[in-house]
Amino acid sequence: MKLEGNKDEKIKIIPLGGLEQIGMNMTLFEYEDNIIIVDCGLSFPDDEMLGIDLVIPDITYLKENADKVKGIIITHGHEDHIGAIPYVLKEVNVPLYGTKLTLGIIEGKLKEHGIEKKVKKKVVKHGQSINLGCFRVEFIKVNHSIADASALAIFTPAGVVVHTGDFKIDYTPVFGDTTDLTRFGELGKKGVLALLSDSTNVLRPGYTSSEKTVGKTIDHIFAENVTHRIIVATFASNVDRVQQIINSASKYGRKVVIEGRSMVNIISTATELEYLQVPDNTIIDIEEMKNYTDNQLVLITTGSQGESMAALSRMAASIHRKVTIKPGDTIVFSSTPIPGNEKAVSKVINELSMKGANVIFQDTHVSGHACQEEIKLIYSLVKPKYAIPVHGEYRHLKGHAELAESMGVESDNIFILSSGDVLELSQKEGYVREQVQSGSVLVDGLGVGDVGNIVLRDRQNLAENGIIIVVMTFEKYSNQLLAGPDIVSRGFVYVREAENLLEDARCVVNDAVVACIEKNIADWGKIKMIVKESLSDYLWKKIKRNPMILPIIMEVE
Amino acid sequence: MKLEGNKDEKIKIIPLGGLEQIGMNMTLFEYEDNIIIVDCGLSFPDDEMLGIDLVIPDITYLKENADKVKGIIITHGHEDHIGAIPYVLKEVNVPLYGTKLTLGIIEGKLKEHGIEKKVKKKVVKHGQSINLGCFRVEFIKVNHSIADASALAIFTPAGVVVHTGDFKIDYTPVFGDTTDLTRFGELGKKGVLALLSDSTNVLRPGYTSSEKTVGKTIDHIFAENVTHRIIVATFASNVDRVQQIINSASKYGRKVVIEGRSMVNIISTATELEYLQVPDNTIIDIEEMKNYTDNQLVLITTGSQGESMAALSRMAASIHRKVTIKPGDTIVFSSTPIPGNEKAVSKVINELSMKGANVIFQDTHVSGHACQEEIKLIYSLVKPKYAIPVHGEYRHLKGHAELAESMGVESDNIFILSSGDVLELSQKEGYVREQVQSGSVLVDGLGVGDVGNIVLRDRQNLAENGIIIVVMTFEKYSNQLLAGPDIVSRGFVYVREAENLLEDARCVVNDAVVACIEKNIADWGKIKMIVKESLSDYLWKKIKRNPMILPIIMEVE
Repeated sequence: MKLEGNKDEKIKIIPLGGLEQIGMNMTLFEYEDNIIIVDCGLSFPDDEMLGIDLVIPDITYLKENADKVKGIIITHGHEDHIGAIPYVLKEVNVPLYGTKLTLGIIEGKLKEHGIEKKVKKKVVKHGQSINLGCFRVEFIKVNHSIADASALAIFTPAGVVVHTGDFKIDYTPVFGDTTDLTRFGELGKKGVLALLSDSTNVLRPGYTSSEKTVGKTIDHIFAENVTHRIIVATFASNVDRVQQIINSASKYGRKVVIEGRSMVNIISTATELEYLQVPDNTIIDIEEMKNYTDNQLVLITTGSQGESMAALSRMAASIHRKVTIKPGDTIVFSSTPIPGNEKAVSKVINELSMKGANVIFQDTHVSGHACQEEIKLIYSLVKPKYAIPVHGEYRHLKGHAELAESMGVESDNIFILSSGDVLELSQKEGYVREQVQSGSVLVDGLGVGDVGNIVLRDRQNLAENGIIIVVMTFEKYSNQLLAGPDIVSRGFVYVREAENLLEDARCVVNDAVVACIEKNIADWGKIKMIVKESLSDYLWKKIKRNPMILPIIMEVE
Repeated sequence: MKLEGNKDEKIKIIPLGGLEQIGMNMTLFEYEDNIIIVDCGLSFPDDEMLGIDLVIPDITYLKENADKVKGIIITHGHEDHIGAIPYVLKEVNVPLYGTKLTLGIIEGKLKEHGIEKKVKKKVVKHGQSINLGCFRVEFIKVNHSIADASALAIFTPAGVVVHTGDFKIDYTPVFGDTTDLTRFGELGKKGVLALLSDSTNVLRPGYTSSEKTVGKTIDHIFAENVTHRIIVATFASNVDRVQQIINSASKYGRKVVIEGRSMVNIISTATELEYLQVPDNTIIDIEEMKNYTDNQLVLITTGSQGESMAALSRMAASIHRKVTIKPGDTIVFSSTPIPGNEKAVSKVINELSMKGANVIFQDTHVSGHACQEEIKLIYSLVKPKYAIPVHGEYRHLKGHAELAESMGVESDNIFILSSGDVLELSQKEGYVREQVQSGSVLVDGLGVGDVGNIVLRDRQNLAENGIIIVVMTFEKYSNQLLAGPDIVSRGFVYVREAENLLEDARCVVNDAVVACIEKNIADWGKIKMIVKESLSDYLWKKIKRNPMILPIIMEVE
């Protein structure tokens, strides 16, 4: 098939996140002195990243090429696509492009970081295009679990690249139109160089159900629980879900209370921008709850993932200041646990059940991502020369590669990219020959990148075994022990229970130090090492544990 | 219905584990001076129990009543039913009763603790009874995911109590007989006082599939992968599963390599006791693998839960000393992730996929626990007066209570017990009026119970924020600062990256100490507090982190 674009031109596609750290969705498109960025997501820390708040992409390559960067295009407003924006803009301040709701959600983020006035933003509608250097980027309507999501058609000198963003195909969406299949087909007819497409549900056969099916279930729950208070936990960003809950509330004459910071934020943004239609006098403040009976109330709350600080979890643990769970409450998890959150969600369900609540979590959620048949539909319309599976773990990308091959893409033309891979694509060939710097930067409090592997390894060791500190004071020059050795421990053992153990440990250390002095060892590094080894040996033999041992020597002149 | 037993007698049923710490299955049956213990399980630590190896029940009540205890009856050989045995026997040495395979597995455990010679054990066959004080305990055949599992009929002065243990109903078991439904029916016909029954799958409608269905899937996988090496990961204790893999291996002319310590242990016990039929020359040593081609080999391995130190995880991470994963390897997860292990399993699957292996995890496992219809079947046969759901989280026990009610048990006669609850049961009434001491004891290395909440809280704090130690030496009496303050940190921040931060922190501490001296503050507790607060304030303002701060003062005469 003849493709648009010049067959001698070559573009570069460089993911800076994604496979290695799921969630950090960020892809660069580069041609000569032009770079555009698609999405700018953050990832939440893995279990072993102790104490870390967020993980963002290493953007060294972008900083080195800051003058080439024309802008950041955002497909939709989920954290894994927008979360790193403030951090990136602080280094490379370029304009942002996205749909109205997407930029509305980002605005809140920029305000939190105090940079909202420094950033240029441009709202783009579906069907519109923007020109960024040599690139033209067209926004295409897709359905997803957040309103106003977009796919992109990126017109490059080498041809058209289609990026689906995160998508599903919902023939009966709650708000707005169906995924613009016609536009995908038109692009495919003209010839598409490459397709980057969502892999999340590629291992699931069939189709993802319409968001409207959830609305039906929720409506049934309202019909069956007319006398009880209803509490629904869901993802704050799922505006259509919230709309359906509000619709049912309105139908059954209930007032709606919104609880949880992110829920309040997004609902107010979505209402203001008219993505959410709330009948007058439907939403009430949590303080007004007392004026209504249980059967007149619905709470929409955060906490559907069992996050310990979220509103529902606090209600479950009886530490929520305004809401007390009581027997008869009907609590709906309109969500599915994200992998890794299963136990936390179970814990909350158990706590709520113990308080006598009736917890419902079946048929109350649908995914926002396309299953196999939907992904095949996109391939059948777009017919790309090259396929680049994105958005998934390796097993998903691999499953997607197999699907792409079954849809007629040549296996040599399918690329599973790692972070930093530079995929060079022309109409003639595609290959990865080089890599740019990439990786994860850990954010802990205000610190960005000051916690790395050594610190994490120490935290892991401290977490599992605790620490024993051995302090002693020597006289400078004379090598005489003036004080100590004293032992202080934290996170190791109950001091009261293990008084003898710790006293014996002190003797072991003392013997080691005395032996050093008798041998005239004056090298403090050596003394510390001997102390460490003798104490470590003793504790392992005695109790089979390996606390971190930290000898500290002070010197007095 | 008329029940067996004396209608004026009353027994006590006391769970010492279970609901609060899932896995620690242990229930006492008490009548006057007679106590018998059913099961003696351990639990694996929750995420917040940092560094803990195992969790066992608090048996203070048993120790206080040691002279009454007649014996421990074990329903089957899973860790959550046998794991605490060595710890309990060290405190209360009474005889053990169980089926042949169950006691065979326990034997290994006793040897590890060096107490195998001190413990009396008696093998009981299904259909046989043992007399323990005033109790008679009959063992009843049930199917489960480990061979030789038993339900119990406990004949007490107040009537018959049936305990299902963990069970499913498998009409086509791989080894031995079907769950002895007739015996449950006979007991029911004579009248059963109470039923304690497995709740694990009570939220799942329908029936659990037969273990043989997995054998079929495995056989298909062998048929479809004749040229590849096959590696199957499964639960070591699932002897029937291992049998089916060996059957397929034998059918397709492959040699079997057993890998992973617990797999080797259980297979050798099961083979020795004739629960596993291995054709001659089928199992080979891992060292002999090199003499065979890929299509002549099957590995059966541990690691189906993504446990980081298990054999399959080590293969996936390229740190297994004998096995290197290569493209074309067919790897079967004959298991389902236990809640909490989902991410670890995904990680291993991704690593294996990246090495080119073909990973299969669909239709390759069935549960060992009864679903709703099977549990209903048991109720329809046993027709208990009282129902006591066991073995599950609260939501399962609650679901089970609803099922019991739907099967005709009066709602006042259904008891969801917490650890330590003393349920007093007679034919007239049942109630919980008192509690005995119960709870979790944490095992860390050789230490039993020497790590508790304070230590865990410190570990959590250390894990998330690291530690900063401030040391200084004062002259006794004179209150003169001889050395320091020095700052040492671990798990806090990259020292190289944050040199300025740490130097500034040292100055803050120094200023605080100097101010104390100037104010003639000689109370070291007070100096420590001031140092801690000033440093803590500084770090929170500067970097929004809260490391543990540990000031240490040494004194020199």
